[in-house]
Formats: sequence, structure tokens, C-alpha cells
Amino acid sequence: MKTIPSLPKPFKGIVPPMITPLLDDDTLDVEGLERLINHIIDGGVHGLFILGTTGESTSLSYKIRHELVERTCEIVDGRVPVLVGITDTAATESLRLANTAAEAGAAAVVAAPPYYFSLGQPELIEYYEYLVERLPLPLFLYNMPSHTKIVIEPDTVKTLSKHEKIVGLKDSSANNAYFNKVLYKMKDRSDFSLFVGPEEIMAETVLLGAHGGVNGGANMFPELYVKLYEAAENGHVETVKALHDQVLEISTRLYALGKFGSSYLKGIKCALSVLGICSDYMASPLHHFRKEEREKIAENLEDIKVKIQELGLKAQD
Amino acid sequence: MKTIPSLPKPFKGIVPPMITPLLDDDTLDVEGLERLINHIIDGGVHGLFILGTTGESTSLSYKIRHELVERTCEIVDGRVPVLVGITDTAATESLRLANTAAEAGAAAVVAAPPYYFSLGQPELIEYYEYLVERLPLPLFLYNMPSHTKIVIEPDTVKTLSKHEKIVGLKDSSANNAYFNKVLYKMKDRSDFSLFVGPEEIMAETVLLGAHGGVNGGANMFPELYVKLYEAAENGHVETVKALHDQVLEISTRLYALGKFGSSYLKGIKCALSVLGICSDYMASPLHHFRKEEREKIAENLEDIKVKIQELGLKAQD
Amino acid sequence: MKTIPSLPKPFKGIVPPMITPLLDDDTLDVEGLERLINHIIDGGVHGLFILGTTGESTSLSYKIRHELVERTCEIVDGRVPVLVGITDTAATESLRLANTAAEAGAAAVVAAPPYYFSLGQPELIEYYEYLVERLPLPLFLYNMPSHTKIVIEPDTVKTLSKHEKIVGLKDSSANNAYFNKVLYKMKDRSDFSLFVGPEEIMAETVLLGAHGGVNGGANMFPELYVKLYEAAENGHVETVKALHDQVLEISTRLYALGKFGSSYLKGIKCALSVLGICSDYMASPLHHFRKEEREKIAENLEDIKVKIQELGLKAQD
Amino acid sequence: MKTIPSLPKPFKGIVPPMITPLLDDDTLDVEGLERLINHIIDGGVHGLFILGTTGESTSLSYKIRHELVERTCEIVDGRVPVLVGITDTAATESLRLANTAAEAGAAAVVAAPPYYFSLGQPELIEYYEYLVERLPLPLFLYNMPSHTKIVIEPDTVKTLSKHEKIVGLKDSSANNAYFNKVLYKMKDRSDFSLFVGPEEIMAETVLLGAHGGVNGGANMFPELYVKLYEAAENGHVETVKALHDQVLEISTRLYALGKFGSSYLKGIKCALSVLGICSDYMASPLHHFRKEEREKIAENLEDIKVKIQELGLKAQD
Repeated sequence: MKTIPSLPKPFKGIVPPMITPLLDDDTLDVEGLERLINHIIDGGVHGLFILGTTGESTSLSYKIRHELVERTCEIVDGRVPVLVGITDTAATESLRLANTAAEAGAAAVVAAPPYYFSLGQPELIEYYEYLVERLPLPLFLYNMPSHTKIVIEPDTVKTLSKHEKIVGLKDSSANNAYFNKVLYKMKDRSDFSLFVGPEEIMAETVLLGAHGGVNGGANMFPELYVKLYEAAENGHVETVKALHDQVLEISTRLYALGKFGSSYLKGIKCALSVLGICSDYMASPLHHFRKEEREKIAENLEDIKVKIQELGLKAQD
Repeated sequence: MKTIPSLPKPFKGIVPPMITPLLDDDTLDVEGLERLINHIIDGGVHGLFILGTTGESTSLSYKIRHELVERTCEIVDGRVPVLVGITDTAATESLRLANTAAEAGAAAVVAAPPYYFSLGQPELIEYYEYLVERLPLPLFLYNMPSHTKIVIEPDTVKTLSKHEKIVGLKDSSANNAYFNKVLYKMKDRSDFSLFVGPEEIMAETVLLGAHGGVNGGANMFPELYVKLYEAAENGHVETVKALHDQVLEISTRLYALGKFGSSYLKGIKCALSVLGICSDYMASPLHHFRKEEREKIAENLEDIKVKIQELGLKAQD
Repeated sequence: MKTIPSLPKPFKGIVPPMITPLLDDDTLDVEGLERLINHIIDGGVHGLFILGTTGESTSLSYKIRHELVERTCEIVDGRVPVLVGITDTAATESLRLANTAAEAGAAAVVAAPPYYFSLGQPELIEYYEYLVERLPLPLFLYNMPSHTKIVIEPDTVKTLSKHEKIVGLKDSSANNAYFNKVLYKMKDRSDFSLFVGPEEIMAETVLLGAHGGVNGGANMFPELYVKLYEAAENGHVETVKALHDQVLEISTRLYALGKFGSSYLKGIKCALSVLGICSDYMASPLHHFRKEEREKIAENLEDIKVKIQELGLKAQD
Repeated sequence: MKTIPSLPKPFKGIVPPMITPLLDDDTLDVEGLERLINHIIDGGVHGLFILGTTGESTSLSYKIRHELVERTCEIVDGRVPVLVGITDTAATESLRLANTAAEAGAAAVVAAPPYYFSLGQPELIEYYEYLVERLPLPLFLYNMPSHTKIVIEPDTVKTLSKHEKIVGLKDSSANNAYFNKVLYKMKDRSDFSLFVGPEEIMAETVLLGAHGGVNGGANMFPELYVKLYEAAENGHVETVKALHDQVLEISTRLYALGKFGSSYLKGIKCALSVLGICSDYMASPLHHFRKEEREKIAENLEDIKVKIQELGLKAQD
């Protein structure tokens, strides 16, 4: 068993939500996975989050989910802490995956609320307490109302934070009034990590005290997000503005193509394929971009790479 | 391998969405399961639907889901067709369960839309086509917008009904304007089954041409729902009114306790436990009723049993 | 002052939600209004409902709303009871309109919940009590969650029904499980009127005890809806099926054109214009159908008129 | 006619959304209004916004709305630009109010989308174009999806910004990913004002380029919001953090009491009454806080006033 990096308190920085490279619905792109992990870690990130929404976790078979945990931990080999998404409608499956994560050497798990039956806040608290009593690893809460249809209310975060094993929150609501209320309520808990998901809001939240970002764009350009995080943490407003602007260009030009939802996810996978890093296959029910969108992504990517290099940062050739 | 009852076209009648008797989060109540199945079939039902919303399917481990399919088919032993819910966010897991269902002798499978990523209607059509090409059994569509956050639009039903393997729709929206539009669009397809979920609306939909009900109350009082279905199918309006009134009393007095959602599901499981049929354990994230609600359920159940017997129907003692 | 028809208890039958004929955003089509009212009343309807959702009430200036109340009552001249929608975000404006209605000789008013601030059920009860204490006319509750974003819960209806001045409910949710629960809870109150809005569900609700329909299609073909209502009230299932089928054809072929919401409303106004009854101008923010949709409506309308005549009913030439 | 302050381009700073002081549902608290306006202007704000959501505009009779516009402009007397909310479901009423605003000397109007019928984005564009062609004053768009149930999409803002008379956007979504996308798309339009509503997010948006805040708390403590705005505009991160923390304390302790929605609005009105500035009467359907909540507000207000004075700012005695 590998040496597991123990998680600092609070855990801070850029923790990319890794996409899952696939060859088909039930086969990992193992070579792509290795290239992708190395690419991300070379960008200086502070951790790696697998099996989140960006990782298409809910679309993957359990065989693939367990295999991905094992292979990722092996490839990462202790270079950065690995966080494993265990979000599920069935607590038994969450726990089974958490055990695989612990055995493989992951540092923590991440769980959004169950997303089929709708729960009241007291039921949500009971749910997390049920998990925590049985988990072999520390837990990050994951607020994701657009997909789970329930908000982990600020007072619920406060209540749950009293459990020693609950060590942080990843908020993907994009609602900064919500996030700032949580930040304010938790200001006496400097050990509790508060991350945001959407990269479009990472800079400003870190400027005001958040601990980091779980930003999809860091699959493609990890260094950009790391530098932006560092500038924000140090209060360098002018640098923040320049790098934040670059993040918004990525968001505007790579995540907004196509007609339906998930254009963000399709855009990242497509870009990684254009960059030669891994396959862009997506598990059912989603589908990768076809020719027209791919050509647009490729074209936009060229501009973005130039600008990223002009900022003095690495961009995959 | 058992003889599999071939599904009539259209398939018609009362097909109870069976609750899943559990001893704990990962153990079936096997004795309760056998009592429950026999109790339901003795009521004269036309089929049995397992692993639906009422069956808590999304809360169960896959081990339990597969085991339940096998044990149910074995206990039913060809007395009625068994329909198996394969609703999942991961198509690979839906297909794995469908294969178990086919091997165990189930007659058909039932799938609601994936419920994590939100899809457009064209993506939903692609999803069902992906499934259908790989399924070993006929498929019923399952419209369940309160839980999946997407409607299978009437035109989508029409489009999908052209696939030979798609044989019907179970609609649990409770939106009868929706249901009647589907019924109208499909009126030239007398082989395509249209069922509704909520028992509060079964009578009227069958009166106007629907093929049956997938009604939770039939776990407790199967004969009531069968007789109501028959009266409606035969246009006996006065009988319909009397029996429909009884169904509404069940709905009002057994499904509306407690503070949060799922009071319907908690009410049925609690009542079955009070009736001595099976355990009322519920898988996380839901919880069975505690003492106060259980006493209220028991009290209401006494009244309901008396009234059901006054209607000349069987009620469990 | 005219003789005001006193409202029977319960008030029953077909009460068309009249569209508002307009020449432009701030001018009534007065001649069209007279033709439309006479056309509807000649169809044998039991009342007339103005300033509902179908009447575009929220899009009209208050000048027009008050003028419409006065002119309508004058034209109707006691032939049928007139119900006036007073739904508003500002209770003061609801009351002002109710006073105009009382002076003009209307029989009752109709109010959906306020639709800007979201209220809890206790606040909703307080709101209706505030209104009722100040109203000069009986009040119908109006459940319209798709537009107001709040449900008048069955228990709230029960609570409010204790006020002598609250005499009924119009439910436009299309959720028949909801409606049947209300019907069951109110079954000891034979004086309290329960109407449904969507014409696609009117037949089945009347078969099971509802008191009538507030159906938009009755602007065009009032006799069809009256005959369907009578057949349903008398339990003539075969007649119900035939006429209900015709209603569904109207819904399918006239209300589903165009790309956005309100295709129902646009379809009715367009059809009335094609029939030569009144102008199809719609108040901002909605817009009437342009040439392409109008031609389709005209074409479908021809088929529908033939079928309605084959049913032995009048259809405008 | 007064001299109307012409609106700078871009208009910037703190523009409090003024509450509407009322004595009862149809009577302004005229003395309170004068005290409140003077109190706010003395805090150094850059403008005054009346008849927004915080101003309970949709709950007020039109008589009151027009009277408030006239009295406010008179009292303000050119000291700061007055912006008038004209949000309505009926465009004719919006225009009537806009004319009153122009005559009274207001500087601009503000309109959220109509909030009864749901519109597609092209219909929304048509709606705003209809308004703009008829408006006597510049227009700010107002994104308020929690109340209007429609988002003004970033591309819609971009399209509408081409009309000379549309001069800015107030975004109250609290969704900073949305806001940052708009900010990015509009970065070549330095004359177009981008404001946010929720005070919990004002600091960070101004740090990254927004033009100001329309923050309710500035009814009570205008100077705090002005100083926070100035610190953010100048990139003084440490000052921002300290003042932002104070804003969050106000939000946490004054806006989160009571059981239902609108606790924010009830909290501000109650606090202003405790501070002796104006009446806390709320127009139906909302209600002011009763004794228990008022005592809690008064207690929390004492702490807050001390802290605000410790920050070197004025707090009403």
C-alpha cells in the first residue's frame, strides 16, 4: 500500500474535477488516463478529484468507478491527495466505493445529497450522519442543487461541520450569496475547507477567504488556475483580473456550444481530445461533440493557447 | 428456467409497484417478500412491478436489486408477468439488471429517464434508442417528472412507440392533461399500453381508455384496485364512484402523515408491517415511521379494513 | 342597475374563460366583444368568466380591465352569471376591481394567489382572509401553480371554505391527484363548487363529482363543452368518450403550434379571428400568430368544424 | 420642473433600493419617507432606486406608485439621480409609470421581465424593444429569476445593450457565474452599467469590474455600503474584507428571522422602524414582524450599531 498524503487542515488550492477518459461505455481509456493525470499534476495542482459531475460519475458502471479509483491512485502515486466522489442514491454503494478509495490510498471522499427522493434538511443531516459513522475516510460535503434539486443549507453545513470526519464543503451552486453566508458562519473554523466548483467565480471567493477551486478548466490548463488561485490568495488584484479574464474566455468559448445542457462537460472532453490528451467518448446518456462543434472548439482552443502562452503559462501543444 | 408468461398486447390491468421488504440496508426480508407476493397475487392482480419508486429501487445496492429480481421471479413462478424497473443514471447498470431479469423469467422492463444530467427531448430519444438496441426484454417508458425532473413529452412517446420493443408507458406525473394528450396521440395503437401510477387518478383514466394502474395501495388491498379497474373498464360509473372513494380514503388517511416527502411510501410500508405482512425497514436515505405515526396508521387502518369488508372485499386480518 | 342573477349553490356547468378582444394594447375590440359574448351564450353555457389567464388579465391596463367588466355585464345583461377575475399582486387593486364588478352586476369574483412574492400556506390563508373581509361579492379560489408558482394545498382549500363568502375553487393545475384529494376532502360540502380549468380533463372530473369546467375551447365551440359536461354529469360514458375525443382533437390541433408558451392562448385567439368573431390582437408581452401558424390554424379549424357538425353540434361558419 | 441630474456613463456606485414607508395598504408614511430619503442621501449614496422588489412595488396600488414617484423626486430634489422601477405584467402600466417618472424628474427606469406568462428569450427581447420604443427615459434591465421565473440570458443582455436607451443591468440572481459571464461579454462597453442586487456579493463583483450595488442594507447603514464600494473599486482588499464581514453580519442577523420568504424585506422594514426612521407597515400579501421577531431585530441591531461605529462609520441612534 502506498503512502497516503495526509490532508492538511484546511485543505487548500486547486483540485481539478477530473474528466473520466473512456473508450466506450464500459472501458476506461487507460493510456489517456495516465497522460491526463500527469498533465494535470505537472500544472502544480494541490489535489485531484475524481468521480464528480465533471467525471460523469453517475453515468459510469460500478465496475468502472472502482477501477478508476484504483488506477488513479496508482498513477498519482502519492504526488497529490486524491479525493473520490461517492455521491449516490444508495448509501450502500457510496460506502462500498469509499472502502475501495481507502484501500487504494485516496485521501478523502466527496458526497452530494442523494438525488432521487427529495429530502428535508433534517433528513439530509440524518443521511450524512449515517454515512459518516461508516466511512473510512474524511468527507467533503458537495452542494450541487442544479443536479440534486436540494440545497445543503448554511445551517446544515454548520451542524454537520461538528463531525470530526466532515472536513469541508465543495459548493457548485454558483450562488455566491449562499457561499458567502456559509463562509461567514464558518469563520471561526479555520480548519474547515470551503471550495467552489464553477471556475467563473473562483477568483473572487478566494479573494474573500475561500480555500480553493474544483474547476473543470484545470483539466486543460492546470497552471492557469493554480496561478489565479495563488494571486487571489495573496490579494494581488491586478493579476487576478488578468487571469480571471482568461478563465472567462475559456468559459465563454469552450463551454457554451451545442443546444442542450452539459455543454461545459462536452466542451472540456472535446478540448482534451483536440489537445491529444485523451479520448472524448462520453458515457450514455451524454454524447461527445460531433464534427461541427469539434471544429469550433479546435479553432477557439488555438486562440486560447496563444493567450495563455502570452500570460507566461504552459499550454499543451 | 420457468415458463415466462408472454405479455398480452396491450398489457392491461392492475400491476402493483411492489415495495421492497428489507431487514436492513443490505438484506432482503425474504420471508416477508414471499408473504407479500402471495398476498398481492391472491388479490387477483394482472402483473407485478418491482424496483420502481415505490420499491425504493434507487436506494438499494445492486446486489439487492439483482437478488430481488431472482427471488421474485422464483416466488411468482409464472403466476403473473413480472416487470422489472431498470431506471438508472448509468445505462450499463440498466442493461446488466435487464439481463438478470431476462434470465430470471421477467416479462418486461421499465425505465424512467436518467435523473442526474438533464437532457433535451432529442437526447432522451437517443438514450431510449441506445437502451432498446441492447435490451433482451420489452420496455415500458416511465414518466416520473417529480423525481427525474424531465417530462417524456407526448411527441417523444409517439416517436419511441415506433420501436417494436417499446410496448407501453407508465405515467406517474398525475397530470391528466398530459396523459390524455398521450392517450389521444396513441389511439390508433391499441397494442400500446398506457398505465398511470397515482391511484387517485386510476379510475377516471381507465374510464376514458387507459389500460390500467400501477398503484401502490395494491400492496395492501389488491382486490380493491382490481375491482375498481374492472368497474372502470366496463363503464360502471356508480361502482367506480364507490370504490374510488375508498381509494381516496386510503390516500388521505395513510399517505399524508409526517413532515417531509415520501409520506406515501412510508405509509404503505408501515401499514404492511402493521398488517403483519413484512418489515417496514426503509433503506437510507429514507426512514420508516416512528411510534407516533405508526399508531396513527394502525388506527386509520382499522377503519379502512372495516370499510373494505363492507364493500365485500378481502382485507388482511 | 341590472338584476343580478344570484349564484346557485353549488354553481355548476360550463363557464368559459373569455378571451379579451383587443384592437391594440389599450383598446377593446368592442364589436368583437359583443359578437363573442353572444356566440358563447348562444352555446348554452352556465356562466361567463372574464379576466382570467385566458383573458390575458395580467397584460391589460387597469383602465381596460374596469371597462371590460362594465361592458361585459352590460352586454350579458343578466342572461348568465358573470364571474370576474381579480387576481393581482396588489390586494388594493383586486378590491378596486371587485367593487367595479359588484356595481356592474357581476355575480362573483375569482382570485389566484399573488404571484410575485412567494408565500407560505399560512400567509396565503391570511391573504385570502384579508380579501374576503373586504369583498362585496362571493369569491372563487383559483389554483394556477404553473403561473403563480404556489399551490393552494387541499387543506388550505378546506380551511378557507369555512368562510361563507368563499364559494368554490377553480383548479387549473391539471394535477388530478390534487383535484381528487380536494374533491374527497370537500365531499360533505355539496354547496362548494369545484371546477377544473384544462378542458382535456373536464369530462373525467365531472364524471367523478366535479361541478364543471372553465374551458377555453368554449370560446370557439361552447355547445360541445356544454354537451360534454351534461353527458359526464349524467354518467353517459359512451357520449362522454365521443365528445371528449373531439375536445382532445381541438387541444392537439389548435393549442400546440408555435415555439414558446401560451400556444394555447394564441391558438384560441387566432381561431376566433379566423371564425370572424373578433380580433386576434394580443397585449404585450404576448403576440398573435403570424401568417404561417394562422394558415395552419385555419386548415385544422376546417376539419374540426366538419367533425363538430357531424356530432350534431353547432359550429360557426 | 426640477433640474434632472443627467446620468453619468457608466452610472456607478451605491443605489439603495428604497423600502416604501406605509401607514396602511393605501397610504404612504409621508413623514417617514422624507426622513428615510434624507438618511440615505446623507450616507453618501450615488443614486436612489424606488419601486423595486425591496420597495414592495408589486404590492402597491397604482395610486401609491405614482404618488411615491412624485414625492420622492420632490424630496430628493436633484441631490442624487432617482431610478424608478416600472416592472409590471402589463406594458401599458409600465409606460404610464415611466411617464410620471419623467415628468417628476427621475433619471432612469428599471424593468424586470413580466412575471405571469413565461416567455422565451426572443419574446423577452421583443418585450424590451416594445418598451424601449415608447420610453421617455433610459432603461436598466433587471434580472430577478427567483421572482420572475425567467433569466435574462447573457446573450440577451448583449443583444439588448445595442439599444441606445438601454444603459445597464441590475442582476439580483446572486449567481456570480451568470454575472461574470455578462461582465465578460460586456467588457468592450465601458458605458454600460452592471450592478448587483444582493449585498452579500457586492464587494467581490466590484473588485472584478462591476459598477455598483443596489443593496437593501443601505436603507439602514448607507455609509457602510458606500465605503465598501469605494474600497472594492480601489482594490483595497483588506478594507473590503473588514466591511464585507460587517455586511454579512447584517445579512445573517437581520435578514434570516421568521419562517417564510421575504424575511430580508421584513427585517429591513422592522429595523428602520426600530431605528425610528419610518413605519414598518407592509402591504398585503406580506406582513411586518410581530413582537417576538421585532425584539430579536432590536437586540441584534444594537450589536451591529456598535460594530459599525467601531468601523468609524455613522449608525443611526
